[in-house]
Amino acid sequence: MSDFSDLYDVIHRRRDVRAQFTGAPIPGPTLDRILAAAHAAPSVGLSQPWDFILIEQPGLRDAFYAHVRDERAAFAATLTGESAERFARIKIDGVRESTMSIVVTYDPDRGGPAVLGRHAIADAGLYSVCLAIQNLWLAATAEHLGVGWVSFYREPFLRALLGIPVGIRPVAWLCLGPVTHLAELPDLERHGWRERRPWQQAIHREGWQAPAPS
Amino acid sequence: MSDFSDLYDVIHRRRDVRAQFTGAPIPGPTLDRILAAAHAAPSVGLSQPWDFILIEQPGLRDAFYAHVRDERAAFAATLTGESAERFARIKIDGVRESTMSIVVTYDPDRGGPAVLGRHAIADAGLYSVCLAIQNLWLAATAEHLGVGWVSFYREPFLRALLGIPVGIRPVAWLCLGPVTHLAELPDLERHGWRERRPWQQAIHREGWQAPAPS
Repeated sequence: MSDFSDLYDVIHRRRDVRAQFTGAPIPGPTLDRILAAAHAAPSVGLSQPWDFILIEQPGLRDAFYAHVRDERAAFAATLTGESAERFARIKIDGVRESTMSIVVTYDPDRGGPAVLGRHAIADAGLYSVCLAIQNLWLAATAEHLGVGWVSFYREPFLRALLGIPVGIRPVAWLCLGPVTHLAELPDLERHGWRERRPWQQAIHREGWQAPAPS
Repeated sequence: MSDFSDLYDVIHRRRDVRAQFTGAPIPGPTLDRILAAAHAAPSVGLSQPWDFILIEQPGLRDAFYAHVRDERAAFAATLTGESAERFARIKIDGVRESTMSIVVTYDPDRGGPAVLGRHAIADAGLYSVCLAIQNLWLAATAEHLGVGWVSFYREPFLRALLGIPVGIRPVAWLCLGPVTHLAELPDLERHGWRERRPWQQAIHREGWQAPAPS
């Protein structure tokens, strides 16, 4: 391994946290480093189309949690048999237990009208926002914090809750805060929902065709 | 700073490389670490919907380069005056000079039909693919390699070139390889195309409203 193995350590330790949040405070300088790391992500045409809405108010988090609970029920209703039983055991959010939440948004008008590199691929700006989210996630992991991306919500609900203007798209609701520990296995693997596949199976050479033998 | 400052160093050194590729070989174990890091990204419902097509053949890269050149001309034709002059000086790809390319794709059917966490947000799987791309980018940076994301292309062209099946979406063409150095400033900032904004301007509190005073 190289002198930079810490990066790999962080990448492989990182987990999507639901149940391990302690609610303890996040020191201001720690949060600043995490947000600056997110903002250092690459973006198409240097458009930096992301914003971060920090949410600590219990009222806002309780309202979001109630919405998530309803969406969870809607998803559960699409499942039957073993899937339904497995899903019933899975905790899908730590909205109320985590220290704070961060909503990440995408502004397609920033840097416009001619965003260099976006004329052919309309979603390229949205991709940039996701790169910033991964920086945030890794930085939080390096700071011994947990992050949980909650995706059981409807965008119009979130837009109304936070007064997000028309034209700005909410991309993620992230729970953030100190944790008791990061799990060794992803929750969904531990609950038998789905397994990780070996990375070699995702590799193709010189075209789609069949995956290369590993 | 914490014991994990290398992660921050990597995040802030990372650049979107166009002109600094040397074409030198990438050791196999290095490439393996980078691909395994990409594959360790979080994904909605643990769907791991990404694939990586490694491209070394000059013929494929030349064909893609010719297409990028045409798309560059199409974008240039939308610019006038100072923007047009600035853009003329900007190198937009290192497809031929870099050691290899990696095309990253998204398979919306993987893990289906009920992908946990994707029922309400159709794009959540696409977001996962971008998180893997940022892991790849940071791992390459830690290995002293450069990455350049080329977005001057049309998806149907790339699909045809690499035999990517209908239903699988190409998300990124990444150039990868050793570099002479990573630039201190992003190319687009150095060329006066656009400036980085202070991260504090991207922060809002408890709702969209106005950004918080820093």
